[in-house]
Amino acid sequence: MSEKWVEDRIRAGRGLFSNFTREPEGEYHTDQELKKPQPPLAKAPMTGDTRDLPHDFSGLQIDNDFLHVINSRKSHRVYTDEPITMTQLSYLLWCTQGVKSVRGKSYATLRTVPGGGARHPFECYMAIRRVEGLEPGLYHYLPMTHQVEFLGALDRLEEMIGRTLSGQRWAEKASVVFYYSCVFYRAEWRYGIWAHPTVLIDSGHITENLYLAATSIGLGGCAVAAVDGHDADRVFGLDGQEETIFYAMPVGTVAPENQEAEDAFYAFVKEQGL
Amino acid sequence: MSEKWVEDRIRAGRGLFSNFTREPEGEYHTDQELKKPQPPLAKAPMTGDTRDLPHDFSGLQIDNDFLHVINSRKSHRVYTDEPITMTQLSYLLWCTQGVKSVRGKSYATLRTVPGGGARHPFECYMAIRRVEGLEPGLYHYLPMTHQVEFLGALDRLEEMIGRTLSGQRWAEKASVVFYYSCVFYRAEWRYGIWAHPTVLIDSGHITENLYLAATSIGLGGCAVAAVDGHDADRVFGLDGQEETIFYAMPVGTVAPENQEAEDAFYAFVKEQGL
Repeated sequence: MSEKWVEDRIRAGRGLFSNFTREPEGEYHTDQELKKPQPPLAKAPMTGDTRDLPHDFSGLQIDNDFLHVINSRKSHRVYTDEPITMTQLSYLLWCTQGVKSVRGKSYATLRTVPGGGARHPFECYMAIRRVEGLEPGLYHYLPMTHQVEFLGALDRLEEMIGRTLSGQRWAEKASVVFYYSCVFYRAEWRYGIWAHPTVLIDSGHITENLYLAATSIGLGGCAVAAVDGHDADRVFGLDGQEETIFYAMPVGTVAPENQEAEDAFYAFVKEQGL
Repeated sequence: MSEKWVEDRIRAGRGLFSNFTREPEGEYHTDQELKKPQPPLAKAPMTGDTRDLPHDFSGLQIDNDFLHVINSRKSHRVYTDEPITMTQLSYLLWCTQGVKSVRGKSYATLRTVPGGGARHPFECYMAIRRVEGLEPGLYHYLPMTHQVEFLGALDRLEEMIGRTLSGQRWAEKASVVFYYSCVFYRAEWRYGIWAHPTVLIDSGHITENLYLAATSIGLGGCAVAAVDGHDADRVFGLDGQEETIFYAMPVGTVAPENQEAEDAFYAFVKEQGL
């Protein structure tokens, strides 16, 4: 890492962690401070071809030993290729982006995850392979009504999943892959030039809840940061400028007998004597 | 936001979300690929003045309705200024950075939170005001032995808390303030120039678990990204180059009768008709 461009890039990366002490180079006010109109709290439906999600979770077998959920969460990359139920999908969406209430007339959504200034600039898209009652294809979560909308079927859905996750083909057996985008201005309106590192932190709140919620109902997943956003944006019809996909998490059905196959992902540790 | 520097800054911020599709400008290998020695999995003790943490959580009153914990989590900025117990502190540290096992000889820690490549480049420091059995002052968590070490007392501890959190003085009544640093090379060794946005995401996993764990035992907190890292680094004796504090979360005792005081933080929404 001796070349200057690498050093510059590392320095810039480290600089993100001093985000709030990076002063602007001149007088600067955020759009909220300038009283500019606030953007919508969530994206409008894209097709309106909606499916209601069940909101009664009493039929789910939830592990209600909180500490056991925390302790047993781990990455799962091997799936048994079974379908999950609509209620399970609904539960995962609720626990990660569900809107509990709206503050003010339309100032903020209060969600099941925390987020800086309650901006919640994320949208959740899904590649659904095996969810009972839902045609396989592309979907978009509508948090204000707790519905999904169908964006369309896709030939070679599995191939798209592996490709958009930078070739991580294990994800192709997931029941559903959650893709998260950021609608930048929703956070920039309030935080302006300081928005972006904080939004990244906030996205971790979502995936941690997704890990825990999946664990609590016996499902498994593994978050993926190595997302090809340009490709995923094209698949889901996003412009890549005002909104881009940057993070994903496949979730599927898992079984203890696949532990050996899971461990194979870490074979290099033993092979290299690490 | 018409000035060019603002546009440049916004563009750079948005660019972080395409981290993994930003190609290097030349041939590039990470230090792991170059077989360079791996940095330690955790920071060595700074003073060695350790205090053991109880690891038997059976005496804690944990809300074991998982969905209720998810649904009832919210930001708490008003504290009743009571002490918390050592077991409660231990539980919060365990749920956020606890080391469940080590992979390989010393390749990776597997923790109660997920992290890209299991790098876990974070250290947890604490400003402890009111924890039974611990002298008020500055502490550092030792994840490999699940202990804390005492770094020293500090005159005007409360003033330091408010100051390092950019003047958010509500935090001065917290029982404990958790400060998170990033030890950059621990992640850069594996991810090089791509490390930093992913590490920010990973830090959100920690605070989400802290929110949930606190909620599960009746405590409350509110994560703060507006941290003055330069100031906090100085307080905890960090160099600010290889390691810097970038995120914090005060946690304290809460009571329902303080809801009105909590709501006062959002009075501007009504005042401005938002």
